[in-house]
Amino acid sequence: MIVVLAGGVGAARFLEGLVQVVPQNQITVIGNTGDDREFYGLHVSPDLDIVTYTLAGVIDETHGWGVRNDTYHTMSQLTQYGNEDWFMLGDRDLATHIHRTNLLRQGKTLSDATDDLRKRFGLDIRLLPMTDQPVATHIRTPVGQLHFQEYMVKRRCADEVQGVLFVGARESRPAPGVLEALKGADAILLAPSNPIVSIGSILAVPGIHDTLHEASAMIVAVSPIIGGAPIKGPADKLMSGLGMEVSAVGVARCYRDFLDVMVIDEQDAHLVGEIEDLGIPAMTTNTIMRDKESKAALARKVLEAAGLSF
Amino acid sequence: MIVVLAGGVGAARFLEGLVQVVPQNQITVIGNTGDDREFYGLHVSPDLDIVTYTLAGVIDETHGWGVRNDTYHTMSQLTQYGNEDWFMLGDRDLATHIHRTNLLRQGKTLSDATDDLRKRFGLDIRLLPMTDQPVATHIRTPVGQLHFQEYMVKRRCADEVQGVLFVGARESRPAPGVLEALKGADAILLAPSNPIVSIGSILAVPGIHDTLHEASAMIVAVSPIIGGAPIKGPADKLMSGLGMEVSAVGVARCYRDFLDVMVIDEQDAHLVGEIEDLGIPAMTTNTIMRDKESKAALARKVLEAAGLSF
Repeated sequence: MIVVLAGGVGAARFLEGLVQVVPQNQITVIGNTGDDREFYGLHVSPDLDIVTYTLAGVIDETHGWGVRNDTYHTMSQLTQYGNEDWFMLGDRDLATHIHRTNLLRQGKTLSDATDDLRKRFGLDIRLLPMTDQPVATHIRTPVGQLHFQEYMVKRRCADEVQGVLFVGARESRPAPGVLEALKGADAILLAPSNPIVSIGSILAVPGIHDTLHEASAMIVAVSPIIGGAPIKGPADKLMSGLGMEVSAVGVARCYRDFLDVMVIDEQDAHLVGEIEDLGIPAMTTNTIMRDKESKAALARKVLEAAGLSF
Repeated sequence: MIVVLAGGVGAARFLEGLVQVVPQNQITVIGNTGDDREFYGLHVSPDLDIVTYTLAGVIDETHGWGVRNDTYHTMSQLTQYGNEDWFMLGDRDLATHIHRTNLLRQGKTLSDATDDLRKRFGLDIRLLPMTDQPVATHIRTPVGQLHFQEYMVKRRCADEVQGVLFVGARESRPAPGVLEALKGADAILLAPSNPIVSIGSILAVPGIHDTLHEASAMIVAVSPIIGGAPIKGPADKLMSGLGMEVSAVGVARCYRDFLDVMVIDEQDAHLVGEIEDLGIPAMTTNTIMRDKESKAALARKVLEAAGLSF
């Protein structure tokens, strides 16, 4: 079993490669839920949905989130009722949030709801939220403490990052199956996701970091930072705000407690020495996932780094 | 103040006439909520919405419910998630149910939510649900006890009606302002709505029937049955199922405890004697509301029957 710790867009693209190489039923994805937030009383899980929509082939690739060719009639009407309008939720996408919220209100867990949606889209991977308890990533800024979505989407990452908090993490527990999956894995892969607010939030759930530290499987991370900048998202602002180096080296430092191999882009080959000075072997390859083939090639390289061949 | 007891389509059309004759801020509508039901965990109040949408000019006039030119993308996706698909909820219409449900979950009452939506649509009438507690109209049939929406929409009124129950009515209380409005009214009008499941459910809320009985205002009802059949809806099946005569006389009998004047269609003029034998004066006029003018004319006639002139 291959276990992947996953954020949103970068992880979903990496998984698109992995499912070309590894049968879906041999993949367990542990997804970030620190970005989850209620909109209009509906539970939205952006990262879990990005993974599901992407693997189901319905993702809006232009945005990287939401359903392709979606319309915004419900949201437009909700805005007329005085509701907030800065987080775009399309009509088809809203069905997901309505369905999930309905399951949660019926006493189902987020794991149950995630698995139900996964099945409805005909996927054979296993998709686990990092926790079934509410954890909210907050960003400390000069204007106050903001929910990550407010920091990123509403205020477009315009505020100086002074700190990151995972509210509720201390009281949370890994979702059922998460620790077992990590313990029994043949390889553990950290997708090219934001090391602070995507992977960092997963690591903040008690038990996950320690289990990674003790895991027998090889742990391989793919750097989301290429040439000093993320492909997408605010990883650079978050890392620099926290005083970290915005580079594959900075990412490797986040994971140094448990990482076995760091995979970095070939244009960052000059950083190999610095990463290996941390005691982490580094491997270079093309990590820019432009098309189906490059996604599969990256997955193969990462599996190879984990000592597996498919 | 004119108080109107209202169901769905018939009442909404009658109100379209009334607002042409009486300033909106002199009208209080007490709406049926026995038809309310949750769909996908969202609170749907069909009759209240029909009144609001109609007076706001956004109603889908072909259906008599929902928002004109609405799309069904969210619902179509919800159906793909295995949810029921027999109660059509358009994308713009769903915004209403999401907004209302969100307000209810925040601790607001149905009265609050109804008033909020009424204001959002720029209406000056006062719209009160009959109660803030859950009351569900159920139909006893040979296949079991069905929620009214299942009887009417899902099973298209195909089952024999053996009885009607207002589940929860005994424990319900009139919504704030309902009894006060009836006591202080200058006239109380019963819209041409289903006497069993629209007006009957309102009368089933403890205190409302007695307050009507004691009200000082003239109480005038408009028959929804014309020439032995309703203009719309299953009033005939419900009335005959309960052993009632399907006619303006049958309707008058439902209200005989408190009714002062019965307004019937001119094609039922031959029933005047029979209604007056019940001790209820009857007035004939054209009650078929084809256009703006005929709606206003009916409203004027009904107000005249109540002894008022505008």
